[in-house]
Amino acid sequence: MTTTDAIAGRPAPIPITDPDDPRIAVFRAVREKDLTGRHGFIAEGSVVLDQLALSRRFRPSALLVLDSRLAGITDRIARLPQDCPVYVASREVIDAIAGFPMHRGVLAHGIDMAAGLTAADVLSVARAGDPAAPILIALGIANHDNMGALFRNARAFGAGAVLMDEASCHPLYRKAVRVSVGTVLTEPWARGGTPIDLIEAAIAAGYEPLALDPKAEGSLGSLDPSRPRALVLGAEGPGLPRAVTDRIAGVRIAMRSDVDSLNVATSAAIVLARLYEARADLSRSVR
Amino acid sequence: MTTTDAIAGRPAPIPITDPDDPRIAVFRAVREKDLTGRHGFIAEGSVVLDQLALSRRFRPSALLVLDSRLAGITDRIARLPQDCPVYVASREVIDAIAGFPMHRGVLAHGIDMAAGLTAADVLSVARAGDPAAPILIALGIANHDNMGALFRNARAFGAGAVLMDEASCHPLYRKAVRVSVGTVLTEPWARGGTPIDLIEAAIAAGYEPLALDPKAEGSLGSLDPSRPRALVLGAEGPGLPRAVTDRIAGVRIAMRSDVDSLNVATSAAIVLARLYEARADLSRSVR
Repeated sequence: MTTTDAIAGRPAPIPITDPDDPRIAVFRAVREKDLTGRHGFIAEGSVVLDQLALSRRFRPSALLVLDSRLAGITDRIARLPQDCPVYVASREVIDAIAGFPMHRGVLAHGIDMAAGLTAADVLSVARAGDPAAPILIALGIANHDNMGALFRNARAFGAGAVLMDEASCHPLYRKAVRVSVGTVLTEPWARGGTPIDLIEAAIAAGYEPLALDPKAEGSLGSLDPSRPRALVLGAEGPGLPRAVTDRIAGVRIAMRSDVDSLNVATSAAIVLARLYEARADLSRSVR
Repeated sequence: MTTTDAIAGRPAPIPITDPDDPRIAVFRAVREKDLTGRHGFIAEGSVVLDQLALSRRFRPSALLVLDSRLAGITDRIARLPQDCPVYVASREVIDAIAGFPMHRGVLAHGIDMAAGLTAADVLSVARAGDPAAPILIALGIANHDNMGALFRNARAFGAGAVLMDEASCHPLYRKAVRVSVGTVLTEPWARGGTPIDLIEAAIAAGYEPLALDPKAEGSLGSLDPSRPRALVLGAEGPGLPRAVTDRIAGVRIAMRSDVDSLNVATSAAIVLARLYEARADLSRSVR
């Protein structure tokens, strides 16, 4: 197909030949600016685009595609809302727009239609889905890669939601979206409030909070998989605040004593994998 | 202390005021060039420096320290060989040397004194240490972050060695060293050969190879922790070659069926954590 052919009843893709074209302003210098919140967000790559198409919360507002990639993603584009314009550009123009070599060749700009969702809103949705699934409470996670990896692992092991305190970075930062493989667009989440706010919201929704803490006594093997847990995670280095570890039960991952800590997303994956397997065993034994 | 005070019987630190000084040439434009193999490697930060001081295989050949950081790391410097010169520079000079803002303020250049170590050499050391500890065989791991994270997790859960095939990136790339928190400098490893070469070397050394494979039947819960395993890991996306999965037993991590895969270092951590805990339980029950 050429860049001006229409895709299955959609308006024809719009060729862009000038990197300064105002219609693609949201994609300009995309590495330097990080759009989040009211300014929308940037999703890169076709796998992430699929998550955006699946999402009910997020809406693509514009797509910018490398001309040579267009024919390969028409099925994916057909799943996007009709009113989302598709811009097409050559390698030279797209690199000039983005400000760096755009290996992926697919950029979406999206909008959060529910940016004001509270922890309580998200937890009521999570409990209505799989009431025994664990959730994550992430505190002070400032690193975008870790935030993305946390979502990816939450999704892999069926966590019902991710809550982040106000000290955590925004999960819609470009790099977090990418590292999450787009799961920040389909996993329920809310960001805001203090650690204690989030723990209280989880308790009110019926979750038992459990701090992931190298100094805790509880072992992973002793976890009862039938109880819905809110796994509370702090950043590497500072770890969880005393106000949190003093207040709730804790669990530790057994590891060498001369090792300081694990990456936070890796730690979450280890506990979530264990709970996922134990829940699967439980559901088999009940049947 | 001032920059010209000597540290505990060592030669005095050498002030550098010219970014083009030939004595600090190995630290120049450190982000652009990745020194590995015969050219040595770059280790950043004081935590990584500690691993370098602990290592018997790697030797620091020069240290470049931000003047304001020197007083805080004299104990660490005292542990380095006497013949390792310590260069000291101002913020302005050190940033000009490195070519970007050096937040950490501590750069070491190191040499691999045993770059020719074979898989068999490394495995005989590993078996002599803890004969039942698992080892990792990493195939086609091209991403430096994943390589670093793999070593970090190997260390946390007491893996005896890491073998990498020739298609994997070098573990001494600057970013791999940093992400590994310096564990590439203390964990035994060898790189080179084909996947089958490495699997055969592991079998010859008494390890039972086990492919980490989403399509495998074996579950983590069924692993016998008393047998020394060589956990075989492929890159995300391509996964393990058929020649490998056809030949050896496999194990899978239970996860949601609509999820493609996990990060390779995260997958390794989940299996290693499980084996570590099971081995600890076993040693308690034997006592």
